[in-house]
Amino acid sequence: MQTPISTLTGFIAILVVQIIFGIVFGAFSEYGKELLPAKDGDPLPTNLGSYPHFQDIHVMIFIGFGFLMTFLKKYGYSATGFNLLVASLMVQWALIARGCFEMEDGKIRLTLGGMIGADIAAATVLISMGALLGRTTPIQLLVMGLFEIAIFAANEYLQLEYMKITDVGGSITVHAFGAYFGLAVSFVLRPKKSDLALTNNLEGPSYTSDIFAMVGTIFLWIFWPSFNSALVSGADQERAILNTYLGLAAATVVTFILSVLVSHEHKLDMVHVQNSTLAGGVAVGSVCNLLIHPYGAVLIGSLAGLLSVLGYRYLSPKMLEKLRLGDTCGVHNLHGMPAVLSAIFSAIFAAAATKNEYGNSLYDIFPAMIDSNSTLSEDHHSEPTPFGGYGRNAAEQAGYQLLGIISTVAIAIVGGLLTGAFLKSPSARMIPRDKHYDDEDSWEVPAP
Amino acid sequence: MQTPISTLTGFIAILVVQIIFGIVFGAFSEYGKELLPAKDGDPLPTNLGSYPHFQDIHVMIFIGFGFLMTFLKKYGYSATGFNLLVASLMVQWALIARGCFEMEDGKIRLTLGGMIGADIAAATVLISMGALLGRTTPIQLLVMGLFEIAIFAANEYLQLEYMKITDVGGSITVHAFGAYFGLAVSFVLRPKKSDLALTNNLEGPSYTSDIFAMVGTIFLWIFWPSFNSALVSGADQERAILNTYLGLAAATVVTFILSVLVSHEHKLDMVHVQNSTLAGGVAVGSVCNLLIHPYGAVLIGSLAGLLSVLGYRYLSPKMLEKLRLGDTCGVHNLHGMPAVLSAIFSAIFAAAATKNEYGNSLYDIFPAMIDSNSTLSEDHHSEPTPFGGYGRNAAEQAGYQLLGIISTVAIAIVGGLLTGAFLKSPSARMIPRDKHYDDEDSWEVPAP
Amino acid sequence: MQTPISTLTGFIAILVVQIIFGIVFGAFSEYGKELLPAKDGDPLPTNLGSYPHFQDIHVMIFIGFGFLMTFLKKYGYSATGFNLLVASLMVQWALIARGCFEMEDGKIRLTLGGMIGADIAAATVLISMGALLGRTTPIQLLVMGLFEIAIFAANEYLQLEYMKITDVGGSITVHAFGAYFGLAVSFVLRPKKSDLALTNNLEGPSYTSDIFAMVGTIFLWIFWPSFNSALVSGADQERAILNTYLGLAAATVVTFILSVLVSHEHKLDMVHVQNSTLAGGVAVGSVCNLLIHPYGAVLIGSLAGLLSVLGYRYLSPKMLEKLRLGDTCGVHNLHGMPAVLSAIFSAIFAAAATKNEYGNSLYDIFPAMIDSNSTLSEDHHSEPTPFGGYGRNAAEQAGYQLLGIISTVAIAIVGGLLTGAFLKSPSARMIPRDKHYDDEDSWEVPAP
Repeated sequence: MQTPISTLTGFIAILVVQIIFGIVFGAFSEYGKELLPAKDGDPLPTNLGSYPHFQDIHVMIFIGFGFLMTFLKKYGYSATGFNLLVASLMVQWALIARGCFEMEDGKIRLTLGGMIGADIAAATVLISMGALLGRTTPIQLLVMGLFEIAIFAANEYLQLEYMKITDVGGSITVHAFGAYFGLAVSFVLRPKKSDLALTNNLEGPSYTSDIFAMVGTIFLWIFWPSFNSALVSGADQERAILNTYLGLAAATVVTFILSVLVSHEHKLDMVHVQNSTLAGGVAVGSVCNLLIHPYGAVLIGSLAGLLSVLGYRYLSPKMLEKLRLGDTCGVHNLHGMPAVLSAIFSAIFAAAATKNEYGNSLYDIFPAMIDSNSTLSEDHHSEPTPFGGYGRNAAEQAGYQLLGIISTVAIAIVGGLLTGAFLKSPSARMIPRDKHYDDEDSWEVPAP
Repeated sequence: MQTPISTLTGFIAILVVQIIFGIVFGAFSEYGKELLPAKDGDPLPTNLGSYPHFQDIHVMIFIGFGFLMTFLKKYGYSATGFNLLVASLMVQWALIARGCFEMEDGKIRLTLGGMIGADIAAATVLISMGALLGRTTPIQLLVMGLFEIAIFAANEYLQLEYMKITDVGGSITVHAFGAYFGLAVSFVLRPKKSDLALTNNLEGPSYTSDIFAMVGTIFLWIFWPSFNSALVSGADQERAILNTYLGLAAATVVTFILSVLVSHEHKLDMVHVQNSTLAGGVAVGSVCNLLIHPYGAVLIGSLAGLLSVLGYRYLSPKMLEKLRLGDTCGVHNLHGMPAVLSAIFSAIFAAAATKNEYGNSLYDIFPAMIDSNSTLSEDHHSEPTPFGGYGRNAAEQAGYQLLGIISTVAIAIVGGLLTGAFLKSPSARMIPRDKHYDDEDSWEVPAP
Repeated sequence: MQTPISTLTGFIAILVVQIIFGIVFGAFSEYGKELLPAKDGDPLPTNLGSYPHFQDIHVMIFIGFGFLMTFLKKYGYSATGFNLLVASLMVQWALIARGCFEMEDGKIRLTLGGMIGADIAAATVLISMGALLGRTTPIQLLVMGLFEIAIFAANEYLQLEYMKITDVGGSITVHAFGAYFGLAVSFVLRPKKSDLALTNNLEGPSYTSDIFAMVGTIFLWIFWPSFNSALVSGADQERAILNTYLGLAAATVVTFILSVLVSHEHKLDMVHVQNSTLAGGVAVGSVCNLLIHPYGAVLIGSLAGLLSVLGYRYLSPKMLEKLRLGDTCGVHNLHGMPAVLSAIFSAIFAAAATKNEYGNSLYDIFPAMIDSNSTLSEDHHSEPTPFGGYGRNAAEQAGYQLLGIISTVAIAIVGGLLTGAFLKSPSARMIPRDKHYDDEDSWEVPAP
């Protein structure tokens, strides 16, 4: 049996990756033109109006995800620390990988808009990390992220540029992708039956760690309207904000109610409160800029809270028991299923969309519905022609929304299975089951 | 004796409320016009410039209030969780209740502005919750909130539209209302004398819980300038920001000094630091957009810190001893008295306000001072005529400011007493005194 | 031997200071003109577009620094509380002290811009506090801050107005100044050799306190782009944001790698993760608006992470051993050395700056490079003439950048030594070594 490479060697490999990123930035990237000094004439308009939105998302990625994962009693260093490490490498990689699809003059042009995209891409990896939390080395997480961002960037381009699906909150391209990718990796890394008995008792919260996790939950909850609305503007943006706000509020109320209904002795369960309250934000993601009306946002949010609590209560234990499929943070219940729900609703609302209701914004939201003879399509002439060409009708667009979620989940699962196989190679150090969920594997920890 | 309804039944009742809200949103609400696609002509201007202010307030409501209340050693799940639950139901109810006063074509028009108003309304209930913290079931809090938002919305409309008082930071309509409403409920729910001996030892902090509470305190402190300035614009807004900043800084310094002066062995008391430092923000609330000048902000903030620490040190223990009136978070010292102070200063500065000093902004701040023959009053023709008609002089406006705080406190107390009586009905489950301040009453708690 | 003044007397002295500040605000300050009502004509433009940037910085000062310092196991009340107290007094003092250099009509004009400057000035004192954390009374910190802000404000004016150095992120004027000032104070207050054996075991983290510290670290990390870009606008601002983002991401990756390389058993060390990850933000501070290109940001950030981890691992223990020079938070490694690195890079990039590359923005960034005969210099006619006059060439500007860091460090050290001597006077209460790093010295602490 091959000896796995040591932690030290692993980190040196990451150093090589960081150096390569530096070289790529030097050779193939440059500031976006609006970041350069104006030589003559007026300066180009900047994108600084998006900066408050960016900062809200930045809080979600680094505080939100980081602290949400502190719920395990002895994994708080890893949760906050690995989150910071993984996201820091991933945003650089995402700037490069996503930038490859939009090069100008052979250069990746870096802008604030690209930073927003990079943060959102990093979220995808952090979601996958949630499925695996406590069972991998940081090197495994980083390697997983390197694979995942590449596949993510390609799929995002496929869905938004060729399939022309609408998904402003990223439910399909981010949440579904990240969740099913992570679950597929987790499946490959599942324990042997013979190892199941081997366990420490660290897969659970302490009173204090549960409250730290609420820091993450609540910041995610607060800034989710910014996440869902960052890529739209004007009336669409204000609508995305309001719909997400309503969806989250309704999901939260329903989560508490369901938690009491299904839990032991009708007491509230912190797992539900920390996670299912957020499912409303995922579930309105693909539709938040559509005319779903306030009751639609409340309905979708409520269904997401319901689905998510039921998932935590009944489905996750079954997946663990029958498939040995671990999902530490329950990303299937917070991100996976609510994202599929969002995609289904996006198909329903796409099927119902009319020019009469949406005015010309119909073609901003669903550019493939532009009549192929219309001059409007010329605004998109620098983009690839949509699959099936311009001139889709509403039912066709609905079909593409469904195709979008199906193909995304398929790509995520295949990508995750392949990535998992790589992570399981004999050269990768695996954490033995009795050292899972324990900061001591990676950190110097003070004596209690 | 009637059996109280179970927790389960209570939560099912809340489910019914949530479903009713969904139906009301469907039947009686719609997006505000600026959130709808432009059909022809230019799109309406959005209110998105307020979004960063909204997000600051959102952090205050969900992180600020939630974590401020985590100071009890075994009530952190409830503090953060019930805060999230109560606020999530209340923002929906506030969108509806406040919207009823401004319907267009039979519809409540939902906008970002309404979300800001809904968050602020929720703060009122969270303040009241602070008075009761640890002694009620979540169902009691939710029911209290349903009553309170209805009365709050009516009183807010009365004070701002008919009384035409100035109160941009909500010291009168939010802080005083919430504090005295909560205290009135707490008074009705006070323990019987015979039960006083029955106690556990959970009404106090642990070292860790006190630091969690500082997360709440500091975020409230940081974003208070946004709370006080969200409803004004231009020079008034920048003035409101600066005055609140100075008021908070001065209150903080005075709080630390007073804490040392009055505390045991001249050591600092975390209760003062967590709460009285914020009293400066309350105390400048009603006057922060007036020309109180920097020294005025420092003076008012300092007085608030002084008053608040003295309240915690001397008044609250007396209220508990003489009246059995519990006030877990000391909302009387943080919100109640500083809000009254703010109202008094608003009367003083209103009495001194002149056209010469304020220019035309005088009539934006005090619309009832518009000369009744002036064309300026036409800008307000869609609003109800102020009590006493237009053409108030400065002294009259000062009188209305005082009437505003007196009537608000009176309405809050009467409303709170009636609400308390309802919450004490035999059908409501009460938490026995020896289970107070304990997450185990409502939550599954991990073994230590 | 003189009896030191008591804590009570010390706080009363601070009360006198606060009262004096109130009087100074009354006698010598007024709202900035754009905060006053427009009397006739259009209102002046406000600076409210900077408000989101201000709030990000505000979070850094009060949450970021406050929680970063909670890492000690029994010093969390002091870390968050003294941070709040010190910053609250310092922002008032900074409004006054910095305002003295820009009085109009004998009045300090207070604006949002001044608030941003005051918050940044307070950061300087909080950095110095980091060097001393746990070894001084709060009164000593406040007195130190009163001296430090005065010297800081004079040096800031010297560097920016006379030396005309570029330092938009404050690496020179804030980070280097604060670090070396604090280290000089710490040196004066170093223990006698005979006292070295006397110790409690509180200078270290607990598992929980380390996670609280991550709240501070991550919020500092998130909002550092706002800190570095607050004082520029347009393309320069977006460039400062992007460069800081890249610098931080690269510093973070390198910090983790180096931590594994140099730490015991190749495990990660939370000290590095909490601090060295931020060194990238310091190191790009003076150059973030220059055309350092994306690879430059990655390179500088990486070097900062490297330097900082090596400093924590090898240099700080030596300073403590050889010089008895304590640096509780390691501000030399987080702020001091990375700031010197930033200054060196600012000289390098200044030397390479050409009109061809920067266009007219060259003269905004380096105003002393304006040709003395050019009409552009008239835009600066209200400012003092730069040392050496206008018309500097690039090499000369580089020299001034180096002179800027050298003179700043020299002034900070001399100022710190003198301040330290004052703090060590017989009338100042010193905390005995066996009571260091312990909240019980200043706070009422609940029994465990």
